[in-house]
Amino acid sequence: MSETAETRGPVTRRRRTTITSTKQTKRQDAREKPSPCSAKEKAADKVQKHANNNGNVEKEMGKSTQQCHNLQESLLSSASGYSNYRGILNWCVVMLVLSNARLFLENIIKYGILVDPIQVVSLFLKDPYSWPAACLIIVSNVFILAALYIERRLAVGTISETTGLILHLFNLTSLLIFPSASILTVTSITPVGGVLSLGTYTVLFLKLYSYMDSNKWCREIRHAKAKRMTRSYSCPIVAQSNGSAANTNVSYPGNLTHRDMYYFIFAPTLCYQLNFPRSPRIRKRFLIRRLFEMLFLMQLLVGLIQQTPFPLSSLILPLAASSQVPNHLIWLIFFYWFFHSSLNFVAELLQFGDREFYRDWWNSETVTYFWANWNIPVHKWCLRHFYKPMLRKGVNKFLAQTAVFLASAFFHEYLVSVPLKMFRLWAFMGMMAQVPLALFVSRFLNGNYGNAAVWISLIIGQPIAVLMYVHDYYVIHYGRKTEAALI
Amino acid sequence: MSETAETRGPVTRRRRTTITSTKQTKRQDAREKPSPCSAKEKAADKVQKHANNNGNVEKEMGKSTQQCHNLQESLLSSASGYSNYRGILNWCVVMLVLSNARLFLENIIKYGILVDPIQVVSLFLKDPYSWPAACLIIVSNVFILAALYIERRLAVGTISETTGLILHLFNLTSLLIFPSASILTVTSITPVGGVLSLGTYTVLFLKLYSYMDSNKWCREIRHAKAKRMTRSYSCPIVAQSNGSAANTNVSYPGNLTHRDMYYFIFAPTLCYQLNFPRSPRIRKRFLIRRLFEMLFLMQLLVGLIQQTPFPLSSLILPLAASSQVPNHLIWLIFFYWFFHSSLNFVAELLQFGDREFYRDWWNSETVTYFWANWNIPVHKWCLRHFYKPMLRKGVNKFLAQTAVFLASAFFHEYLVSVPLKMFRLWAFMGMMAQVPLALFVSRFLNGNYGNAAVWISLIIGQPIAVLMYVHDYYVIHYGRKTEAALI
Repeated sequence: MSETAETRGPVTRRRRTTITSTKQTKRQDAREKPSPCSAKEKAADKVQKHANNNGNVEKEMGKSTQQCHNLQESLLSSASGYSNYRGILNWCVVMLVLSNARLFLENIIKYGILVDPIQVVSLFLKDPYSWPAACLIIVSNVFILAALYIERRLAVGTISETTGLILHLFNLTSLLIFPSASILTVTSITPVGGVLSLGTYTVLFLKLYSYMDSNKWCREIRHAKAKRMTRSYSCPIVAQSNGSAANTNVSYPGNLTHRDMYYFIFAPTLCYQLNFPRSPRIRKRFLIRRLFEMLFLMQLLVGLIQQTPFPLSSLILPLAASSQVPNHLIWLIFFYWFFHSSLNFVAELLQFGDREFYRDWWNSETVTYFWANWNIPVHKWCLRHFYKPMLRKGVNKFLAQTAVFLASAFFHEYLVSVPLKMFRLWAFMGMMAQVPLALFVSRFLNGNYGNAAVWISLIIGQPIAVLMYVHDYYVIHYGRKTEAALI
Repeated sequence: MSETAETRGPVTRRRRTTITSTKQTKRQDAREKPSPCSAKEKAADKVQKHANNNGNVEKEMGKSTQQCHNLQESLLSSASGYSNYRGILNWCVVMLVLSNARLFLENIIKYGILVDPIQVVSLFLKDPYSWPAACLIIVSNVFILAALYIERRLAVGTISETTGLILHLFNLTSLLIFPSASILTVTSITPVGGVLSLGTYTVLFLKLYSYMDSNKWCREIRHAKAKRMTRSYSCPIVAQSNGSAANTNVSYPGNLTHRDMYYFIFAPTLCYQLNFPRSPRIRKRFLIRRLFEMLFLMQLLVGLIQQTPFPLSSLILPLAASSQVPNHLIWLIFFYWFFHSSLNFVAELLQFGDREFYRDWWNSETVTYFWANWNIPVHKWCLRHFYKPMLRKGVNKFLAQTAVFLASAFFHEYLVSVPLKMFRLWAFMGMMAQVPLALFVSRFLNGNYGNAAVWISLIIGQPIAVLMYVHDYYVIHYGRKTEAALI
């Protein structure tokens, strides 16, 4: 029951543009193929102008009857087609900060601005004089250089394509087996150190596979071009465009340098290409803001993880999971920390241009859309190096999709089971359970109901999988101790 | 680290439209005046086509080099201009439901599906055999009919304009004084009953004022038309349009019926006009959904209010307020319950077409924008019957705005102080404190920071005002009792 007079300049303008754009979107949806200057629209404009003229006539007549109501829907009704809820996102952030203010204050009083250093270090190291995880990560350079030297040999033709492929596959297989074998045998590696080094190796595996594939494509193009050039000395456009581009861009064999290789290794992408798009300059304010976010959210994450209660005694897992809202918040904050703050920070430092690390998965109305849009680097890799090559080889579409899901489930299991030294298949089953869930949601739910179903599966499904592992881990490591203590 | 293969049909299409619309909006913002078929755009299209052709040439050359990265920003970066966060709204709803699931279950087990009837009834009645608030609301019909009969006399001209105005003003003044006098003298009225009946009378005051004003404008137009008709028998367009519209629409004196009056009284608007826009039919599914929301949210609200702890002993009010997040949630749920569910329900029943009961205040970046957009019926009334007439009379713009704020502050105080029988001026001061706050926010903050400031003022400001009244009310009513008990 409160109000004020007319809004001021900038605000009014903003609202108007918002509503215009909404209308435009709706119109576009209705027509499907937007042609900017159709006859219908012009007619509509004329009608509107006519209406305005009528309005003027009425105004001239004296005070108008002031017809102040229009036929329209409320914004929150789904029929209105309105979708600008940026403010709700801000509300979530404000609420998160305010409701955790007490926690923040306590944490800062206890540990200071930085993260509790001893507890964090103890996650990585058992013995402060041996750094097994760090050593493992440093050793990975061997595999990177091996891939580079194989490619150099292939480029000059001293080894055949088949030999190169065998060498590459040997390199990639050992890239997966070596770290897992080390983690399983070296007892001084902690679970967190194990996850970190194994994650690094997995990322490296995907990157080097992409490197191999892309360079092979480059050789094929060079080969095709050479053939065409032999047949006839035509095709001047391509040659010219290559010539003009050569000033700034490198072409195939010129990319096989240490500098190019390590730029790709550190760049926030899994797909190799020649001449990545580069941003014009390093924006210092952007960099500092991302760095601040990284540090602040790191603090928040560690604080939340340390304080999350795991209801180990409760056997009714779904109910326990529904009270595991903090678990979901940790995942959301981790998502923002990793995919927005950290990857953007690295990209800004390296002037890497493509910042699409995620798409609008929060609006996803099907499970498939969620999996295809929350992690764009991995999704892009799967599409480019796994799914499309399979389709080109004539594999059935559904089979290819299932294969991608299987591979993804394998890597999930690999990343969780090896560091924890428990083979439980919960992660594998969790991933494979997505397939029937996706079918169910896409059949029976759509629109906002589908979106709510995706959110519920995220809020409830993830904590269950995490709880399974935590439960088993505690039973194995602390259950025995308590048993021993009892005896 | 999980992904799936290409998205399926409908999802891909949806995403594409989303991103197209975003781009369109941005382009529109940049140009400010959107002309759908400018030369620049055509040129851009040509360039793009050319680029596509180049792409085809490359594809024909064999496998392309697959340049899979583009120069682009992350969606959450403010530079991307992306604003579709419908999913976040759904997330909030899901989180609200899940985190209150325990509360819901307990409430349903305790009270059943319906609201605890005895406690709710006891809010309205002290003595179940006397219904003072209901009687007060029934008596209000006298004022409605008085306004209608005054207008009928004015229409036929048996009383002069001045006499009519005096009679109307007398009617309106007694409409404000009579209920407050009754509430202050009749001791059997509870605070909740008092707020309800006083709210009804205030709404009625605004409606009847609008009725008086609109009918006066109608008479002025009739007068002007008659004058023009006497001067020359021209102006056929207006006559014709009136003639064709007369089949369905009523014109001035024909609207002074009981049916029209009571439609306006029950319609969810405060501004009278002849021939409200009507929706074509009553959508039964829409109606049932709104009804379900009304009942469910009513249950939720009562449950939340009953369980909200008021930290009466704490003297550090701001800190107590920051822990008063439930208070803010109650306000948000009340907003949705009243402005979306209830008003839409009533509008659907009455086939009232204009459903704009609120605009996108959640995106408001200034305090002014918030006050102008969260309560559209009152805002529209103020603009039409208070602010614009003042401007027409030559009042300064800033003075008119302050007057609107003062009137609004007066009604806030009136609605709170009279039923509680405490005159503390907290609500009045709370409203007037918005003026310096608005100046501060619009000067120093903009964009998402301004939005966050508005949210913080809502989250912290409101609970403080509510706490003030609750604190004083408890001190007056229960403080004495405890003192008496101690003696």
